[in-house]
Amino acid sequence: MYNSIICRYHEIAIKGNNRRVFEQQLIRNMREALNAIENLKIRAVRGRIWLELPERKPFSATEIDLIKEKLKFMFGLESFSPAILTPVEINAIKEALNSVADSVFSPVMARKSKVSFRIRARRSNKRFPLRSKEVEIELATVIGDKYDNDRIFVHLDDDADITVGCEIRDEFAIIFFDSFHSGGGLPTGSNAPVLALLSGGIDSPVAALMTMKRGSAVGFMSFHSDPYTPPETTAKVRRIGEYLNGFQPPQKHFFVNLSPIQKMIRDCCDPQYRTILYRRMMFRIAESVAKKYGFYALLTGESLGQVASQTVENMSVINNSTSMLVLRPLVGMDKLETIRMAEKYGTFELSKEQVPDSCTVFLPSSPATRSDVPRLESEEAKLGDFRKVLDEMIANIEVY
Amino acid sequence: MYNSIICRYHEIAIKGNNRRVFEQQLIRNMREALNAIENLKIRAVRGRIWLELPERKPFSATEIDLIKEKLKFMFGLESFSPAILTPVEINAIKEALNSVADSVFSPVMARKSKVSFRIRARRSNKRFPLRSKEVEIELATVIGDKYDNDRIFVHLDDDADITVGCEIRDEFAIIFFDSFHSGGGLPTGSNAPVLALLSGGIDSPVAALMTMKRGSAVGFMSFHSDPYTPPETTAKVRRIGEYLNGFQPPQKHFFVNLSPIQKMIRDCCDPQYRTILYRRMMFRIAESVAKKYGFYALLTGESLGQVASQTVENMSVINNSTSMLVLRPLVGMDKLETIRMAEKYGTFELSKEQVPDSCTVFLPSSPATRSDVPRLESEEAKLGDFRKVLDEMIANIEVY
Repeated sequence: MYNSIICRYHEIAIKGNNRRVFEQQLIRNMREALNAIENLKIRAVRGRIWLELPERKPFSATEIDLIKEKLKFMFGLESFSPAILTPVEINAIKEALNSVADSVFSPVMARKSKVSFRIRARRSNKRFPLRSKEVEIELATVIGDKYDNDRIFVHLDDDADITVGCEIRDEFAIIFFDSFHSGGGLPTGSNAPVLALLSGGIDSPVAALMTMKRGSAVGFMSFHSDPYTPPETTAKVRRIGEYLNGFQPPQKHFFVNLSPIQKMIRDCCDPQYRTILYRRMMFRIAESVAKKYGFYALLTGESLGQVASQTVENMSVINNSTSMLVLRPLVGMDKLETIRMAEKYGTFELSKEQVPDSCTVFLPSSPATRSDVPRLESEEAKLGDFRKVLDEMIANIEVY
Repeated sequence: MYNSIICRYHEIAIKGNNRRVFEQQLIRNMREALNAIENLKIRAVRGRIWLELPERKPFSATEIDLIKEKLKFMFGLESFSPAILTPVEINAIKEALNSVADSVFSPVMARKSKVSFRIRARRSNKRFPLRSKEVEIELATVIGDKYDNDRIFVHLDDDADITVGCEIRDEFAIIFFDSFHSGGGLPTGSNAPVLALLSGGIDSPVAALMTMKRGSAVGFMSFHSDPYTPPETTAKVRRIGEYLNGFQPPQKHFFVNLSPIQKMIRDCCDPQYRTILYRRMMFRIAESVAKKYGFYALLTGESLGQVASQTVENMSVINNSTSMLVLRPLVGMDKLETIRMAEKYGTFELSKEQVPDSCTVFLPSSPATRSDVPRLESEEAKLGDFRKVLDEMIANIEVY
């Protein structure tokens, strides 16, 4: 029945010169996400992207379901609608609506005694003989002739039970009903890739998704402290990484055992600075791997004022350990907003399972809420040539 | 009539050890915002903050309006309700409700023929002889006895026309009706201050407000290019700065004339890098001023992928010009989300007025979307000893 999917984008539309680059990236991502559908044609035509099968064969119900699932969070895309594509001719358009109406109206009429509907027509083809309003009247007549007039009525508001959409373009016209939300933002891959410090917590997966939505593919680096953290720590973060890779062309996931340097810090340095010292080491390792693998920035789930290591002072001291750009999309967000996004994207379920993490190994009871770079550098001086230890840790990184 | 304002906080409540510090900061900010009300008492009692006048004198309508306006966006505070404070005794509580009910019920009954209400009681004082449910029945009886039963009815849902709140605590009980939203987050001043690069655009004021909401007071630095930008450029940003200072204990606003270095860049460097070169100079100036005036980080409205200077590569190159922490709360946000926040906080109206800005002076038609540090450093080398020029510009900064 539906022989086309109309896909709409928003932010790309305002990109001027670079629009084509963004459009092509979006199409590549859609093609990869939908590669299970054989011979799928994906075309950009004047501000829309169209999915079709060869010879305009209708999509099967299974294919429509797959498309709905895969495009639900496709970044760069605003919304999409399964549609019936017809010739640009009013009788053909009416016939298309007539042939498909039952599949949409019958289920609603089965559960409601009175069903409201509205027709919304748009005509970009100005040579088409009827105006939008006239098309709406013609199509309303199709429905009015088809069903018992005691049971259906026209209702012009958003909350009509059924909305019939019609677009009349130069090459073809379409009829559609539902519009499904997609991911919004910019297509992943249209901006340079970055490396996320991914923990098992709620924040970093959300930060990763926000960044994909702004166009950057996100690689992942996670830390464990084997044998001081159990294998569940790694298993959990690995599941999260796999889930996040479902939102983008899959990227690498690096696992680093932080315990060699943690033991040195435990033995040599002031306990109140442990978390800050750990995080400075994490940033150094991440920078080194990012440069090697072509990631252009680091990415964290840090949020201002949320925990002791996230005061402005401590964040500065941690930031100072790398010369790379560090993206912190959650820095100005409240925990509740982050949780709401985690629920929306489905990462909350994965994050809430409690397992010990690297940051809490050998943790002091009262960490410093303030520190400064000279103080931390003097703590690090007690470690001797820690760069060598880091290099060895980097050599032992596991990559998935 | 209302002799007390009950103020509720949320995120502070989970702060454990440091809770008192946050609470005291919130009280200081409230005291400053409400200093027009003479002899106002602000007390923290077991997880709530209370406003009162001496001898529990009722607040005037003007004072209640002022409180509503000033606490509308008080960061750190979740919500507040004007309340009647009574002794912990059921007859006193009933009498309080009886005495105030008309002022709340009459206006609603004047416009609706049937008015729904619900009573919600909470008892933290476990020695009080009635349970919460019993208190609710007693208070519903007060209303039932007072009004025509054909016109009022009990309705337990959120959408009741009137909700009567009652809290029974150890020291006193309260009756209240409306709960007003406040700013949420953490009290401004509970985290270290930062310096915002404030333009006349939509983004940077929102970034500033998000950061205040995470506890940092925000100072402002704005750039103009006199005589290449008109006086309106400065006037507009100054208005925005003043408006933003209404959300926090007021901070300094620095104005820098960027044109001396812009002219050098125009004359010496590759035009496609102008914006990036300007921004590197802005960051250097901001860092220098931040260090002098005790700001711990810089703050921008940058958002990934929004314009040519905000690709990951260009953001990295700009970031590389400072060793200071740069907060970018909008980095992962869509323009539409930012606009929605600007509307909520009232900055959108101020930002939308179109005036030329410093970044667009001598702007090339196609700015580079990619760059790297060595390339930019070689462009800067063409400028000779530009630090001297920056120092002179810094000496000429105007401070408000």
